[in-house]
Parts: sequence; structure tokens; C-alpha cells
Amino acid sequence: MSKAGADEGGAGGCGDSARQLEAKDEKGGTLLSKLPAGPGWTKVSCPCCFSERVEPLVVVKLGGKVGPETKRWLIKMIGAPQKDGGAALLAHPGEDASGDIIVVSAPRCTLLRAAEELGLCKTYRSGDMEAFSYNDRDNFKDSDNMEAFLTLAERQYIVKYELDGLRAQKDLRIPGLPESRMLQKRDNIWQKLSSAGVVVDTFPLHNRKKLKDLGEAWYSGNQLAQPLDSVNDYFGSAVAFYFSFLDFYTWSLLTPAILGLTISYFSGEAQKEMVDSVSGSKVIINDDDSGPMISGHMLQAMFSMIWSTVFMELWKRRSSSLSYRWGTMNLAERFAEPRPNFHGDLGVNPVTGRMEPLFPEWKRDLRMVLVSVPVVGLFLGLVVLGMMCFYWGEAQVKQLHKDWDSLLSQALLYIPSVLHIVYTNMLGNVYRNVAQSLTEYENHREESAFENHLTAKILVFTFFNNFAVLFHIAFFKQDVPLLRKRLASLLIVSQLVNQVTEVVIPFLVDRFISAPHRTESEDDPQEDKFRNQRTLPVFPGLFAEYIELLVQFGYLSLFSCVYPLTAVLLLINNITEIRSDAYKICNLFRKPFSPPVANMGVWQVAFEVLSFVSVISNCWLLLLSPRLQELCREGGLTSTNVLLLAVLGEHVLILIKFIMAALIPDEPDWIRKKREQMEYTSMQALKEQKLQPEVS
Amino acid sequence: MSKAGADEGGAGGCGDSARQLEAKDEKGGTLLSKLPAGPGWTKVSCPCCFSERVEPLVVVKLGGKVGPETKRWLIKMIGAPQKDGGAALLAHPGEDASGDIIVVSAPRCTLLRAAEELGLCKTYRSGDMEAFSYNDRDNFKDSDNMEAFLTLAERQYIVKYELDGLRAQKDLRIPGLPESRMLQKRDNIWQKLSSAGVVVDTFPLHNRKKLKDLGEAWYSGNQLAQPLDSVNDYFGSAVAFYFSFLDFYTWSLLTPAILGLTISYFSGEAQKEMVDSVSGSKVIINDDDSGPMISGHMLQAMFSMIWSTVFMELWKRRSSSLSYRWGTMNLAERFAEPRPNFHGDLGVNPVTGRMEPLFPEWKRDLRMVLVSVPVVGLFLGLVVLGMMCFYWGEAQVKQLHKDWDSLLSQALLYIPSVLHIVYTNMLGNVYRNVAQSLTEYENHREESAFENHLTAKILVFTFFNNFAVLFHIAFFKQDVPLLRKRLASLLIVSQLVNQVTEVVIPFLVDRFISAPHRTESEDDPQEDKFRNQRTLPVFPGLFAEYIELLVQFGYLSLFSCVYPLTAVLLLINNITEIRSDAYKICNLFRKPFSPPVANMGVWQVAFEVLSFVSVISNCWLLLLSPRLQELCREGGLTSTNVLLLAVLGEHVLILIKFIMAALIPDEPDWIRKKREQMEYTSMQALKEQKLQPEVS
Repeated sequence: MSKAGADEGGAGGCGDSARQLEAKDEKGGTLLSKLPAGPGWTKVSCPCCFSERVEPLVVVKLGGKVGPETKRWLIKMIGAPQKDGGAALLAHPGEDASGDIIVVSAPRCTLLRAAEELGLCKTYRSGDMEAFSYNDRDNFKDSDNMEAFLTLAERQYIVKYELDGLRAQKDLRIPGLPESRMLQKRDNIWQKLSSAGVVVDTFPLHNRKKLKDLGEAWYSGNQLAQPLDSVNDYFGSAVAFYFSFLDFYTWSLLTPAILGLTISYFSGEAQKEMVDSVSGSKVIINDDDSGPMISGHMLQAMFSMIWSTVFMELWKRRSSSLSYRWGTMNLAERFAEPRPNFHGDLGVNPVTGRMEPLFPEWKRDLRMVLVSVPVVGLFLGLVVLGMMCFYWGEAQVKQLHKDWDSLLSQALLYIPSVLHIVYTNMLGNVYRNVAQSLTEYENHREESAFENHLTAKILVFTFFNNFAVLFHIAFFKQDVPLLRKRLASLLIVSQLVNQVTEVVIPFLVDRFISAPHRTESEDDPQEDKFRNQRTLPVFPGLFAEYIELLVQFGYLSLFSCVYPLTAVLLLINNITEIRSDAYKICNLFRKPFSPPVANMGVWQVAFEVLSFVSVISNCWLLLLSPRLQELCREGGLTSTNVLLLAVLGEHVLILIKFIMAALIPDEPDWIRKKREQMEYTSMQALKEQKLQPEVS
Repeated sequence: MSKAGADEGGAGGCGDSARQLEAKDEKGGTLLSKLPAGPGWTKVSCPCCFSERVEPLVVVKLGGKVGPETKRWLIKMIGAPQKDGGAALLAHPGEDASGDIIVVSAPRCTLLRAAEELGLCKTYRSGDMEAFSYNDRDNFKDSDNMEAFLTLAERQYIVKYELDGLRAQKDLRIPGLPESRMLQKRDNIWQKLSSAGVVVDTFPLHNRKKLKDLGEAWYSGNQLAQPLDSVNDYFGSAVAFYFSFLDFYTWSLLTPAILGLTISYFSGEAQKEMVDSVSGSKVIINDDDSGPMISGHMLQAMFSMIWSTVFMELWKRRSSSLSYRWGTMNLAERFAEPRPNFHGDLGVNPVTGRMEPLFPEWKRDLRMVLVSVPVVGLFLGLVVLGMMCFYWGEAQVKQLHKDWDSLLSQALLYIPSVLHIVYTNMLGNVYRNVAQSLTEYENHREESAFENHLTAKILVFTFFNNFAVLFHIAFFKQDVPLLRKRLASLLIVSQLVNQVTEVVIPFLVDRFISAPHRTESEDDPQEDKFRNQRTLPVFPGLFAEYIELLVQFGYLSLFSCVYPLTAVLLLINNITEIRSDAYKICNLFRKPFSPPVANMGVWQVAFEVLSFVSVISNCWLLLLSPRLQELCREGGLTSTNVLLLAVLGEHVLILIKFIMAALIPDEPDWIRKKREQMEYTSMQALKEQKLQPEVS
């Protein structure tokens, strides 16, 4: 490789680097958001890619002990054309050849080719979104101006995609590294370099100006709507989908909130409840709720069942419009190279005809069924076990306290709770690692499949952890007032805690602890500014954000009939959540890489499953309502008959939900037409193309 | 049109018809299964379509009063090229210009173009099945020999497809018809001719030799396997899918049959039951069933829940392999012309860019939700009402008989049953017409969508009609012994009745009443042989066959746990059913047109829905089992708790079924790869093709 790369762009950029670096040093101060193309940057191999100024997209942080020869080799690899096994990107060695960063950018051709490989859709000359094709680039709008054609997030993701895809074309030794770190043919170079400590970090750069504009439109003013297109532009579709969903969900909460307020107002019950639950004082449970409260209870249950279905179906429609708008409706991940960690016997992919590792589907299925499912089940069992031990311990301690009634026994009362919290946290941490290993072991070919399976595993566990107690109260203890109290306190306390831990603490840490080390002055060299961005913590991903919404949605759809103000509290929470999440992602973290995605992935499924479970839960809660039971007793129905009626009702409601979900189309009519049109054109094209070999 | 068609093939075949017919008359006797190309047939316009002999595919029967000028015009239309508004087929006027039949065949180019339009897949030179493309025809196997390239069923369907698609290119008068029958521009010609009484019938011709071979391989010998490929060849994929499913289902019955026999043997109970139910004598109900019988009961219930899921999933895999094998996996119906009865405002189809009637999706949905669903619901209500009246009437009459006990009151006992049967039949007939009108009103664009919606409507009603009584016994009367008795008698009696009415009676009628009028001698002119085929009754379609299987499957999966021998009886029935259905379709009916289909359509869904309902039914029947209730009483569980356990169990089982259905892939791995490969190639082709306008 080191020889193979010794021509064209890669070598050009490297061989002259010493001279160029000197030249650059003089201009150090002028480096703004765009660096001049000439000095320092590796040369581009094709003339169309040359541009006056190069936009730094990604910074690669090298280990402290990396020698200049390794860095030079790496820069050459990054700059070498793809046919020579390089990444065909542009690399800049930073202030000098021995500095610990490499700034990476991408020339036009590499960006365009990767856009085709990823299956991104862009505006065609007809005005429709069409799958981008490199050969047909001139018919796409803005295809000569990369900054208008691809979003910043896409450009940065493409750099990462190319770096991650670097593979050794033959066995070779990396200069400056010991013999033991030899690269085998087809080894993933970036992975090897990371495990060897050469590459410590790869992160996309913030664009201060764009970020400022985005922040102003997003969270600074009093605007109601979010600038979702700009979010997609800056942070990528994964983040934009989260905020779109948050937006859609928040506005959808308006109806249940109004209903909840109405019910609470007419029952006059809720205020007292709320005060009770917030103050934490003992609630005087009045088991014989007043009449109107119960009819509200039933109304709320029925409503939340219908609402959750309609909400999810409408979101699916919105989601498909967004995916069309953002050009991610036709992603070709399954036709692209497999993810770096994917392993298998080398063979010819029967679909694309390319040489790549192959791993049979049935083996993966077998691993999932025989290993993953039982292990996940085991952990869920451990959660239940923990809960049972907690209840048992609590009962024991209470008994002890009653018998002894000393200060010691008083203190002992807290032991079970503390132990349970410690146990749950430890279990959660262990589980996260186990889930990661399990998903790695399942050996998914596509990054998105990996992500979805990992998320699904953690999601099930987290959800179970969150709801086990509520389900226990609702289904085993069958104690509606306790459920109501617990729900109200969970809603209020957990949201307060969330907001504080998620935003206030990072904000304070950032402002008063980290920031002083990070003060930037205009005179600082650009490299230091790049390096500074690394001092921000890594963006922890959207899992925590989504699970918060899911748990919220669970409270609302599963249990809200016992506490009508749920939707109101959630609405208030989410309106602030939108802004605080926006502030957080803009200011408190390093910019994340974000792959283009077509939807929320596994979260979509999770919300839908929840909406079905809500029918079961609501029917059950209705059954528990003391007023209904009383009514039935008056009506002369035995409890068995009431139960039968409830089961019947549940089945009918699930049927209705299914029919509603089937009747509301998952995509708007115009999207369906566009999609069918694309299918039709590609069918026609296939027929035409078969002809070409004959004609030519 | 009459002027526009006055050139090329169409006119050629028509102008000379008088002379040619004379020439033909001399050769009349020599007309065998293939007619010589020359005399009588309209001429083909392109040289590649010329062949020595022409195979008669379809006969068009004209009304008695159709004049020779109308017939001549019609023949010209059939023969005219498509650009002149003709069907580009071959027509032969029969024995003379005034005879009442037209024999139609199709030249090579028309067949190939239609095969592309229908989206048929054929063997490519690579050996894979690929969507046929006319321009690329030379790379497909056998594309020069139509009889090997397309199946007989496909060729005949294409003739019908072209005839049905005939549309007037401008306003014109049909010669020999009154002014009132003027054709407007874009009117469907075939529909107009049918409603004017010009065309009485259009039916495909049997091929005696092929039919004989098929019969020998199918039902004459003792072979176990059906010649499914030949069935597909001769009768088309719709029929072949039915027989494949029947086959698959019958073999799948082996496991439950063996289980059922084992359970019956060990319980020693079933024989007595069976004797009782068959003899119709009073069953001595022993409420406290013996121990092993109950464990068998539970075993059977659990087994049939799992079995039905596995069966359906495996069938889906088999179905997709068959569809690949028969080249119907990629049908392009939605890109083809809409069905003749489809109406709407003329406009440009946004997908294909062709001019055709358009009808908005939302309007159709609205019609379904606001009209179809309530009407179907009304009829289902009428079924329930009928059943309630029947029960009420029966109770009244019984009371009367008890009070009076005369011969008259004895006779009155039968009145409710008779009335109920008459009512049900009348309702069924009315409903069939209503369903037809409703589906027509819904205005589906594709023939298959129309068929599926119509089938679904009739299916729901028929199913409800069949099972209302059993459900009533199981869920309201909660009388397991009565259910068992009813099930056994239904299974045995209804199957006997079915076999007799379906096969024995048609066979006798055919042999002793119709056949004497239809004796063929070698000397008869070919035309009379064609005409003779019309004396056979029209094939009634597969609805009755499928619904019989569905009802069977319902008995088995819903209720078989109370009568373990169900599967055995069904297995015996189906083994004879395969042969009798085969005999029937080969000999007792006119050959049906059969569109290429990719699967069983709505029947697939019906079987799957049933398999989910079976979980509910089985859980309920388990709950009813007296032994279980006794066990619970001994175990100190209240009936409410038992019910709760049952509901919990049901939910868990449904969850397991869902997971199993999700885990078993719907298509075999190799099919998935082929499909993805096709998608990939067409994606690539699309990119290539966009380039063409620039290059050329």
C-alpha cells in the first residue's frame, strides 16, 4: 500500500508536506471556517474536485506517541484514490507534521460517489426527489456546489463512512508501528489504527456560524415551530427525526390535555390528588369515587386507546413525508459495503456481485433465538426477582420496625429501597454491556440493523425496569389509588430530575468548570479551536431522549385513565423539553456523526407495541374501577361475567385498533404515487438497459 | 375506426374473407387442434409472427341475430394492429361468414408484448427468472416458440386481456347495429358488444390431447404427488395455487391426524363419540370425562395453536417459491391498463404517464368505510337475527308440542329449521348480489383488487354463516358435549353432502343427460367441436373450493380440541377431494380463463386471521373443560382467578404466535436473494438509463 499510494494525490500531498506546512504557518492566522485549498491539504486527483477553499469537516485525533512517519502514512492513505485503497479525501496535517490532529475534508467527486452509494435522494431537474446517480449528476440541482447539494451532516457522515471503509488491499506494515500490528489483506484499517492507539478519536467539527443561526431559530426566541429542515441540515436526519417526533407528539398531546383538564375540572377531584401526591403526604383514599369521576375515567380510557392509534398512524404519514423531503426514502444500505465489524467467510455477494464477507441469515436467526432471547429473558427475570426481593424485604423491615420501633429500625426502613436502587443500577450497567456483546455476536450486516437490535434489547429492559412497579400495582395489588399516587409522583419527580440532570447540571459544568479551559480568542490558531471541540463531552446518543418519550407515552396511554392530568403535565414538560434538548445538543456536546435514516427505526415499533398494550391495560383499569364494580353488583352481574365482558370488550377494541391501523394508509397519497413512479421508471429502465449490450 | 383499420393486416384478413372462406370450406375436415395459417385467418402484420399453423385459443360466441357485416367488422377489429385500435390478434370466422362463432388466436408479437405488459417472469439466458422484456426477447429461453415460452393458460388469458382492452379510438357506428349503440371515444368495445348482445360468450378452448395427459398424471393413477407444473400450464396459476395449497394442507394434516388418533386411542373415548354422533342417537353425556382425555384435550389445543402458525408460515414460503417458479412474482398489474369496468375522470396517470381514467384513493376508502362496511355489518346482523329467531321459534314449538302433543305439533317441530334454512339461503343469494354491486361501486382499478374485495365480502358472510351456530354453542351455551356432537356430525355429513353435490351429481348429469347431445365423431367439423365445449357448464370459480377448505381449517383449528378425530376425517376427505376436484375441473366444466396471480390473495389473509382466532377459541374451550374446572376447584382457585389465568395465557400465546410468525421468514432465503438482486439490478439500470439521453 505504501508503494501503491506513492503516486497521484496521496503522494503529492505527502511528499510536499514539509514545504507546504511552512507556507501554511505564515497564513495560520487567516484560517477561518474554510481553509485555503493549496497549502497543507493533500492534492485532489481529478480537476473537477479542485476548489479555492476547502471546508474542514472532521478532525482525527491521534495518540500522543504517534510518530511523524505514521502520521504521514495516514495522511497519504486518506488522500489516496480509492482504486489504490485510499479514502479519496482531503487531509491536512494541522500546524505541523508532528501535531496530534489531522483535519479531513472531502472533494466533490468523493462526496458525489458516496451520495450515490448511500442511496441519497436529491432534487432532480424535474423538481422531484430522485435517487442520486453520479453519472447523471448534471441533471441534479446544485450538484456543482457541495455545500448546497449535501447537508453539512451528510458531508461529515460521508467522511466518516469513507474512513471507516478503508481496507488494506494487501498485507502491509504501517510505518512506525511494531511488526505485531501488521495489516492483513482486507483488514479494516481504521479499526486496526483505533485498537493500536494511533487514532484516538474521530469527530465532526461544529460550524460556529451555522450553529449560531440554528440556535437563534430554534431555542432563543419565542417561536412555536422548530426549524426542522435546518436541524436536518446541521445534525442529520437521525437527530431531525427525533425532534420532529417530539414536535408532533407534543402537539398531539393537546387533545388529551384538554380532555384531561375538562375531566378534572368537572370531577373536582384531581386538584386534591395532585396536591396530595406532590406534597407526599398521606392521601385520604376515598374508595367510593363520585359518579362523574368514573364516567370521566371510562371516557379517558376509551379516548386514549383511540388517540394512540390515530397518533401513531398520522406520525407514520408525517415520517414518510419527512423522509421524502430529506432524501432518505431510498437508502441503499443493504447494497453497500457491510459494516466494519461484520465478519464472515469471504465470498461473492449474490445480490451485488461484489466480493465481501458473507454470513448466512439462518445462523444469525439461530443465534438470536438460542442465545439473545434467553439471555434477555434472564435479565428480565432478574428485574422481577429484584422487585420481589424488594417487596419481601420491605415487608420484613416494616414488621421489624413494628416489633422493635427503635431509631435503628427506623433507619433500616430505607435499606430495601437503597439496595433495590443499587441492584437495579448495577443490573442496568451489566445489561448494557451484555446487550452490546450479544448484538455484536449476532453479526448484523448493516449498521442500522445493528443499531436497531441493540436499541431493541436495551429498550425492552429499560421499559420493563420502568414499568414493572406500576404493572405490579395495577395487576397484582390491584390498587387504583396507589397507582394514581405513584403515577403522579413519577410524572412530576422524574421529569424534574430529568430536566435537572439532563440540562442544568451539564450547563453548569460547561459554564463554570469546562469553559474556562476553553476560552477562545480570535488569535488562537485554527487547530487549537478544533482541538478545543474535543474537550466537550461526547454526545450520548438519542437513546435516553427516546426512552424518556416512550416512558412518557407509556404513562399516558397505559395508565392515564387513573390520573387525567397526565397529558397536561407531559405537555408542559415537552414544551420545555424541546428547547432544553435543542440547547443541549447545540451547546453542551461535541457534534455527533449522524447516518442518514428513513424513519425512527425500532422506536416506531416500540411506540406501536405500547399502543396495543394500552388497550389491555385500560380495559383492566376500567375493570378495577370501584364504581364500575359497584354498578355491576347493582346490575346483578357476577364478577366472572364482568370479567368476561371486559375480555370481550378488549378483543373488540384490539380488533378496531387493527382495522383503524390498516385503514389509515402509512404514507400520504402523493408519496405513494412518487414511490410507484420511481418503481415504474426503474422497471422501465431495467428493460431498456438489458437492450444496451445488444445495441452497443 | 372502420376507415382507420382499412389497411395492413386487419383489412387484409377481412377484405379477402369471402374468397378465403370458400377455400377453407374444402379443407374443413382437416382442421385439427391446429388450423392452417393461411385460409380464413386474418393476416398478421409483421413477418416474425407468421407461422405455418395457428392454434385456436379462444372462441367468441356471437348472438343469433348478428349480421355478417357486424361479424366482418368484429373480425377486422380483432385482427387490426393496436395502433389502429385493434387487438392485434388472429381471427377466423368459423365455417362461414354468417356462422355464430369467431375463433381467435394470437400472433407471436402480441403474445410477447402482452407478457411484458402483464409483468410475467420467464427464464433468462442466465437461468434465472427475470421480468420479460419485449426488446430483450432474444435473451429469453424459447422466446421463438410460443407454445414453450408461454403456458396455454397464459396464451388464452392474453387473448382475453387484449379483447377486454379494446377501446374505441373515436366515436363510431358499429355496422349492422342501430344508431343507439354508437361507440363513444374510449368506450370499452367488448363491454358494449356484450351488452348489445353481439358477443354472447368468450371462452378458452380445451386442448384434448393435453387434457388427456394431464388427467392421466393427475387423477387416473395412484400417484401421490400432483403434477402442479402441468396444472399451472394448462389451467393457469390461480387454479394451480389452489391445488398446491390443497396439497400442502393435506400433507400438513398428517401430524394433527396422528396426534388425534393417538389421543383417541389412549382415551378410548372417541370411538363411542363417533358412533354416537354418526348414528344420531342420543349421546349419553358423561360430564366427568376420564383423566387422560382431558390432558389430551389440552395437548390438542396447544398443538393446534402452534401447528396453525407453523403451517401458515411454511405455506407462505412455499407460495413464494411457486410464484417464482411460475414467473408471477413480479406482476405489473398496477402499471397496466385499469380493468374495463373502472371509471373515473380521464387524466394522466402520475405513475405511468399514460392517459386513463383516474379515481382518487380517498374516495374509494370513503365508500368502503361509509357504505360497504355498514352494509356488510347489516347482513351479519341479519344472520344473527335469523339465528336468534330460530332458537326462539324452536323453543316455542317445543313448548307447543309438549302442551299439545299431537301429530300436527310433531310436524310443526320442523318448521323453524326449514324456515331458518330458507331464510339463510335467501339471505345468502341477496348478499352475493349486494356484495357484487358494492365492490363495483368501490371502483377498484385492478382486477385482482376487485376480486379480493369481492371475495373478502362473501367470505366474511359465508364464514359467519357457517360458524355462528358453533360459536353460539361454544361461547353462549358453553356446552362442550353438544359442541363435540355438532362438530362430528358437521364434519361427516357436510363432507358427504359436499362430495355428492360437487362431483357425483355433475358427473351423472354430464354422463347421462348432457353428454348424449354432445357425442363427437371424427367427421364433425372442427367448429362443431368448438361449439360443443359451450354446452358444458361455466366453471363456477374457486370460491366454493377455498371456502370449503377454510371452513375445514376453522373446524380444525378452532374446535378440534373437543373432537380429536377432526384431522383424521379431514385428511381422508382431502385425499379424495384432490382427485375429485381435479376430475371436476378437467371434465365437467368449460375451461376457465385464469389471470396470472402471485399468491392466494385474500384467502391467505383469511387463513391467517383464523389461525389467530383459534387461540382465543382454544383458550376458551380449555377453560370450559369440566375436568380443568374441577382441578381448579380442588386447587382452591375461584372461577374469576381461573378466568384471569386463561386470559393471561391467551395473551401470552398470541404474543408467541406473533413472534413465531415474525421469526419465520415469509420467503426462502434464495428467493429473497433473487428478489434483492432484481431490485439491485433495476436500481443500477435506472442510474444507467438516466445517462442515455445525454449520450445518445
